[in-house]
Amino acid sequence: MSTLVIMRHGESQANRDNIFTGWSDVALTEKGVAQAHTAGQIIQASGLQFDDVHTSFLKRAIMTTNIVLDEIGQNYIPEHKSWRLNERHYGGLRGKNKLAVKEKVGAKQLKIWRRSFNVVPPLLKVRDEDSRYDRYGVKIPLGESLEMAQERLIPYWTDQIAPRLLDGKNQLIVAHGSTLRALIKFLENISDEDIPEIEVPNGKPIRYDFDQHLTILNKQFMSE
Amino acid sequence: MSTLVIMRHGESQANRDNIFTGWSDVALTEKGVAQAHTAGQIIQASGLQFDDVHTSFLKRAIMTTNIVLDEIGQNYIPEHKSWRLNERHYGGLRGKNKLAVKEKVGAKQLKIWRRSFNVVPPLLKVRDEDSRYDRYGVKIPLGESLEMAQERLIPYWTDQIAPRLLDGKNQLIVAHGSTLRALIKFLENISDEDIPEIEVPNGKPIRYDFDQHLTILNKQFMSE
Repeated sequence: MSTLVIMRHGESQANRDNIFTGWSDVALTEKGVAQAHTAGQIIQASGLQFDDVHTSFLKRAIMTTNIVLDEIGQNYIPEHKSWRLNERHYGGLRGKNKLAVKEKVGAKQLKIWRRSFNVVPPLLKVRDEDSRYDRYGVKIPLGESLEMAQERLIPYWTDQIAPRLLDGKNQLIVAHGSTLRALIKFLENISDEDIPEIEVPNGKPIRYDFDQHLTILNKQFMSE
Repeated sequence: MSTLVIMRHGESQANRDNIFTGWSDVALTEKGVAQAHTAGQIIQASGLQFDDVHTSFLKRAIMTTNIVLDEIGQNYIPEHKSWRLNERHYGGLRGKNKLAVKEKVGAKQLKIWRRSFNVVPPLLKVRDEDSRYDRYGVKIPLGESLEMAQERLIPYWTDQIAPRLLDGKNQLIVAHGSTLRALIKFLENISDEDIPEIEVPNGKPIRYDFDQHLTILNKQFMSE
């Protein structure tokens, strides 16, 4: 038996401003910081002890992680950071306001870009350069469908998280809206047709309890 | 060529209250938080890019680390935590006010306990239990001389830090007064007789530049 808690970062500046973000590195808002503290207090009240925490290379997730670890008094556990947990890369939509995109292409196309599984956003023409990825030989995507994000996420689950859970070690993941949707789709075997209806709100921890074969025994939205 | 920056955590509650602490896990004061921000700004102004950061299992060091990484915009780098970087264990002196100890045993004995290399403090009778160490099979010390702390510190230097510096990767260490004294003694080959005069103030980054053989080219107390 082991427990996984997954959580999206607190509100970011881009969430507040309703802008597509992806791999752009934006900070938390004051509200986002407060959400992270509240999430930490909720997790603390559960009494869960974690063996590891996993987060992305993006500061909105890392700062949320550190606030949560401070709140639960467990900031000494190993903190693993991976680009594989980064938000889906929104390609040419990055930096665009969602309402402006909606006015231009319509609500239906916007929802397809935001929530469908395998539709790829408009791709960038030029690849970004960023030493935090270049040093690991990671090719920054030009844009990703949710499926493409899932394909680079699942090896991290398989190699770094599932074995620890199978070993009885409780794990915490602090990541992003789309990568957590992709993970939930994988864990709960949600169909391509149903995934558009799944949303992951900022700063709300979700708890999964597993048996020794990594079958889900219980899923719970944690609350005070 | 590579660069190492070492830094003691910001002021802790025990620093403020003039209490022996060691492996007890006390938080930063508001002043300590401010010192960490200032240190981050000083490091940021140097333009240094780090490949890794190393810290202890103690929250005063971890919180300082995270503040510094946020300030320098590099919180995505790997953060390695090790009990080997923990403060020296003060044994039976832990929790005692330094002035009260001075009144009891005299200034000379206090200085010997605080600053000598190989004098062991009064040992605890009963070993502490703490799952953060027990899970790694680490035996929590009953008390350590500076020499004993150095003996468990240096394997971390040899295995985790020196190879990365030799590989040209800049490293940051955020640790504790005594473990940094022990490291400085080792790096600069300071004698047992001279080490009592070395102090490491809270939140002041010290920079070492090395050549490709890990010879010190330059040592500098970083400032604005």
